[in-house]
This record gives sequence, structure tokens and C-alpha cells, in this order.
Amino acid sequence: MKALGLIVEYNPFHNGHLYHLKQSLKQSQAEVVVVVMSGHFTQRGEPTILDKWTRTKLALEHGADLVIELPYIYSCQHAELFAKGAISILTHLQVNALIFGSESGSISELIGLENLIRLPEFQQKLKTYIKTGLSLPKAQALALIDFQQKSEVITAPNNTLGLYYIKAIRELNSPITAQTLTRIHSDYRDITPTHHQIGSATSIRRLREKQLDFASYVPDNVQHYLSRHFQEVKTFHTWENYFPFLKQSVLTLTPNQLRHIHDMEEGLEHRFYSAALKSLTFFEFIEIVKTKRYTRTRIQRICTHILTYTLKQQMKDFELHKQAPYIRLLGFSTKGKQYLKKIKKEIAVPIYSKFEAKGHPLLKHEQKVTAAYSAILPEPHCTNLNVAEFSNNPIQFEKANH
Amino acid sequence: MKALGLIVEYNPFHNGHLYHLKQSLKQSQAEVVVVVMSGHFTQRGEPTILDKWTRTKLALEHGADLVIELPYIYSCQHAELFAKGAISILTHLQVNALIFGSESGSISELIGLENLIRLPEFQQKLKTYIKTGLSLPKAQALALIDFQQKSEVITAPNNTLGLYYIKAIRELNSPITAQTLTRIHSDYRDITPTHHQIGSATSIRRLREKQLDFASYVPDNVQHYLSRHFQEVKTFHTWENYFPFLKQSVLTLTPNQLRHIHDMEEGLEHRFYSAALKSLTFFEFIEIVKTKRYTRTRIQRICTHILTYTLKQQMKDFELHKQAPYIRLLGFSTKGKQYLKKIKKEIAVPIYSKFEAKGHPLLKHEQKVTAAYSAILPEPHCTNLNVAEFSNNPIQFEKANH
Repeated sequence: MKALGLIVEYNPFHNGHLYHLKQSLKQSQAEVVVVVMSGHFTQRGEPTILDKWTRTKLALEHGADLVIELPYIYSCQHAELFAKGAISILTHLQVNALIFGSESGSISELIGLENLIRLPEFQQKLKTYIKTGLSLPKAQALALIDFQQKSEVITAPNNTLGLYYIKAIRELNSPITAQTLTRIHSDYRDITPTHHQIGSATSIRRLREKQLDFASYVPDNVQHYLSRHFQEVKTFHTWENYFPFLKQSVLTLTPNQLRHIHDMEEGLEHRFYSAALKSLTFFEFIEIVKTKRYTRTRIQRICTHILTYTLKQQMKDFELHKQAPYIRLLGFSTKGKQYLKKIKKEIAVPIYSKFEAKGHPLLKHEQKVTAAYSAILPEPHCTNLNVAEFSNNPIQFEKANH
Repeated sequence: MKALGLIVEYNPFHNGHLYHLKQSLKQSQAEVVVVVMSGHFTQRGEPTILDKWTRTKLALEHGADLVIELPYIYSCQHAELFAKGAISILTHLQVNALIFGSESGSISELIGLENLIRLPEFQQKLKTYIKTGLSLPKAQALALIDFQQKSEVITAPNNTLGLYYIKAIRELNSPITAQTLTRIHSDYRDITPTHHQIGSATSIRRLREKQLDFASYVPDNVQHYLSRHFQEVKTFHTWENYFPFLKQSVLTLTPNQLRHIHDMEEGLEHRFYSAALKSLTFFEFIEIVKTKRYTRTRIQRICTHILTYTLKQQMKDFELHKQAPYIRLLGFSTKGKQYLKKIKKEIAVPIYSKFEAKGHPLLKHEQKVTAAYSAILPEPHCTNLNVAEFSNNPIQFEKANH
């Protein structure tokens, strides 16, 4: 069975995602679709609009056959580790082709760029720019200009992720073939929809927070799940709602304890502390903390590491740069189940279809992640979600013939 | 100037407190009233109904001349350390008499009991009972019976505190004379008021939570402050409201990290974790965690240590059993100011009239305590209270002639 791999967040699932999934299936002529999906926090350090179980259902209902959780420690990370985690999972699962959306749309352009970037001369240039206090993306953009390349290629976020997918495939000696589709009609940063049927996930989340209509941008059942969710819990998974928890944590940890938080750089803990002390909103907080070097996205990720109490030591204990240490099934279709059964014996890492108390420490870490994510929910929803982390089996879905 | 010392929580200030203050003044014929007051969490491990600044105002308006903060590390502790902290502060401040309320009303009875309790034979008996898994108060009551004493004396909470005041005075070689007044018409554990003008603080808090009338039990301005507070913040400082924060903390710390929390005994961390996972309310949580050995009060104190992230190490770093390491002024009357000026030079520990960044680490710990306490408040109240911790000067009050 030929298998297609997709790396997604589905936050929430929208028409652009559906287009991507269908186009990729057509292009790859695969029989089975393997989806690696972020859990409760995204690569940009944001809580997901719907919990991972609901997002798994939506993925299955729209054509995914296997939904695998990208462990938090990879999902809420800089692009390189995010890509390494996702690609290693797809490799374990013997996926043949990865198809990702990019602004470029040209796989040869991106492969060429990846080759350029790893040249020692390029890395040297990069270091020089980073030393001036720039963030990695800004420094890369400037270095590219020095090498007579268009800097736009690398400042486009999906191109960047694509580059790291290509890099991970190379470093892992993965047999996966990378392909890319041009993203249509939207940029993930768009905050207002740009087309009558395709809008970025960000723009859809904004519409929803403002209680404006977003029906035309998502499949019907997505709107149904979102409405039901709000009717039940009466709150949104936005950073503003998590801010009291973040504030309490930052202000009750000493600077020394804050320094142990993953990705917290020397000195940054003091900025966090003083910003938490005087900010009335998360927006204010980020505005105070961020600098040229520490982007909003990076700061948001550190904030999620505070909420989930993710420590530097944990990153050292696991050789994350090698590969994701396990496969956690969130859901499957009948076809996905068959596929998994076929390849199961050849998979070198453990496959968890359920939480296991003696499982990998990173699997246990997901409990903390879910506890942090569920904290804003009223009861019994908070407890239900925490208990689901322990007790849920993968979601099974019988696909209708399309 | 003859000085009277009182050890209080004023949670909230009520007619019984007023009676105690006036009677004590009369009995001691003191000219100045020094009050040592718990900050934002009480000895029973509960958040205070009003913040410490408002409670300081109330104390001054009703006759206190100096209001000193009992540092968290003493206020939210078992009776022995609570007493040690408070008595050492009163000793530093050259107080002549301590007058405390008790169920017994007889200082000679309490002194006799304190003498008995420290006999090696008594301590031996006590150990035997504790080994059977009983809590300290229960074990003491049984040992007293073995020594032909009435166990009620020690199960009455204010007698117990009194015993520890007497013990602390003895151990500190303090020149303070202890006296006691019989508590009238109420037991702190009463949850419904027992008399038409005197009700326990607990019963008043319950009435208020149920939005029932409590006006007859408190001076007018107390009711005024409480109403204003609720109009502003629309929430109560009850454990139920802190439960989401407690839950998030317990579920995102590993058992090993929980074990570092002050007063957390080996094995208890697992009870905390599994209770936090399945409890929908704080009430449920406590019911699951408490045992014969771990009383509700002790569990509540551990919960505040989790919220404030108070670690065992901190207790080791400071020789708390010696004496409170500083005096922190929350407020004073003109007379209190004069008194302090007079004795200031003879005080061996630092006096802080304001937060000092280079002050004692326990002073800094109060920031965390306030951050934990303010976490449930909507903005800007949360930030205002946190900032007050840094920037407030003591509250000054011009006493009218009574």
C-alpha cells in the first residue's frame, strides 16, 4: 500500500486543509493517508482551538487514515526540531511521499536552498548576523541576500518548515520523497480571510473569537464541532484566557527556577518576571518581553513551557535530535488499521494506542500538557479532558466511500 | 509606654475581635497596641477574605497602633511555628503583655498543661500514639487522658495556640507576660453564628459567601469594605476559586517536584496527584486526600505551599525555629509611630517599612504569596495588588480620641 504523509496542526481544519489533502492524494496516488498532528499546543506556541481528540475526529472524517500525535516536545518547538519529530514518525510509519504546502511551490527551489544553507560559508555568515542580536529567521534572510538569493523564500513560514522537512529527510536517511503544493489564497499570518472559501486557520480563529461568521471557510462539521464546543464550555482556548495561569506561575517561581524552563535563555527570566508583574493582558506581556532576537513565536513557546512546566533537563535527557521515540495513535480508519497491522512488526519504536504508566517519559509529559491546556475549562470539562489523556483509546472511524 | 501584644488574623475583623481588643487594653492598662497579623493566608491554610492592606486599615481603625505582618512562612504553619514567629516579633517590639483568647480562660491551667506536655514521659506517650497514625492534636488528646487530664483542653483550638504561645515565650526567654481572656459566644469552628452580636470569623465568611446578612456581627466599616470589595472584584477568596490553579500546579509538577514542596511527606504527593486528577471541586479534593494523620488544615496548608511554590529547602535555609528574622510594618497610628521611634534602635532585626529588593529572602517570598493570592482577581485588581506588595508604604492612621 502506497502511503502519503502529511504534517498538520488543523487548528482548526478548514477548506485549505481539505484541498491540500485531496490534491496530495491525487498527486501521490497513495492508498493510505498518514497524518502527524500537533497535540494541544502548536508550533507557534498557541493552545489549539479544539482539543486533539476532536481535531483527530475531524481529520479522520475528512480523509486521514492514521492520526499520530506529534509529541509536545516536538510540536511546540522551533521549526528544525518540529520537522525532525514529524519526519521521523512518518519514516517509522514507512510513508512513501510527504506533500507539504509552501509559498514557493517548487521542490527543486527548496532543495537547492537547503543545500545552500548548509554550506560552511553560509553558516559563517549566519553566525555573524545572529551575533548582532537578530533572530534566526531574520539572520537567514540577510545571509540569503548576501548569497544572491531572494530573502522572501525564507521569510515565508511554510517554505521554512519545508526546508527543515527536507533537511530532516536527508539527516535521517529517510526514503521519503518530499513534494510540495503551492498554498493557495492564504498566508497563515493573514488575519482576515482573503478568498471566499479559503482562509488561514489564524483568520478563522479571529473570526470565531469575534463571533463572526466563518462558515464558508470550513467544512460543515467543523463549524458544528466549534459551535458545540463553545456551547458546552463557554470559553475559548486563547492565550488571554491562560494569562492568569501564566502570571501566577511566573510570579511564584524564582528567577533561578524560571531559568530551568526549556528554551529560557540567560537573563530572559528577569524580563518575564517584570513583564508578568505589570501586564494586564497577555498581549501587553508579549509586547514587553519580545525583542529583535526573541520573536513573539519563541516567547509564546516559552510561555507554554512554563504552563506545562517543561524543563531544560528533560530536553537533555532525551536525544530528541535523533528521532521521535515512539508512535502514539490518536485515531485510525479501517484502512489505517489494516495498514498499521501490516507494517507493525517492522517498526522499531513502541506504538502506544493508549496511555501507559510505564510508557516513555515523553508520553507521560503529555499529561502535563493536557493539564495545562485544560486548566481554563469549567468542570466537568477540565477533568474529562485530563481523564481522557489516560483512558482514551484511539478514535476509530469507518470511512464512507468517497 | 506600656505595650500590649495581640496575635490575630482578622479574617474578617468582627465584634468578637473588637471585644477582645478593648478588654485586653482595659485589663493590661497598656498605652499602645501592637498587632501581629497573618498576611494573605491564614494558619489554617486559607486565603483571607480581604487583602492584608484592607485588614490593616480595619485593625488601625479599631484600635491597633502598630500592625506587623507575620511572615507567610510562620502564618501558614502548624501552631508551634506560628506561635514562635508571632511571639518573637512581639518580643522584638518590647511588648509587655500578650493577651490571647482561649476556651479555657485560665492562664494557670494552660501553663500547667504546657509544663506537663514537655515532660519526657508525656513526649514518650505522644510518640507511641503518633506511630499509630494519628495526627498530633489527636495523639495529644489521648496522651492527656493517660495523664488524668481533660482532653478537651487541648482539642480546643485556641487553647492549643495559647499553649504554644506560652512555650515560645519560655523558649525565647521572652519577658512577655501571657494572659488569657475566655472567648465568648463562639468557637472558630462554628459555621452558624451563635449569638446575636458575636459570631466566629468562619461563620461570618460562610454567611457572606451565601450572600446572607452578617451586619450584626461586624463593625459597620467592615461591612462597608466587604461590600465594596465584592462590587469591585466580583469574586471571593475561597479555596474553590483557587482550585483551577492548584489543580494545574499539581498536575504539571512531577511527583518528584511535588515532594520538594514544604510539608509534603513522602508518599503524599501521589495522593495529591490522583486526587487532583479526578476532583471537580476543592471540597472533593480535600475529602480524597485527608486521612487520620493528615488533617484538613494540614492539607490546606500544603495546598497554599503549592500555590506559592514554597519549598522544603527554604525552610532549611532559614533558622525559623530561632525567631522571625525581620519586622515588616503594614501600618501604624500616630502613637504607634512614636512608640516605634522610641524603641527602634534597640531592635536587633531589620525593620522594613517597605519592600526592599535586597531585603531578607523571606520578605521577597511575600511577593510570591501575593502573586498566588491575587491570581483569582480580575484585572486591574490582580496587578494592583502585586504592585502594592512592592510599592506600598505602611498605612498611616490618625486615631480619633475614643
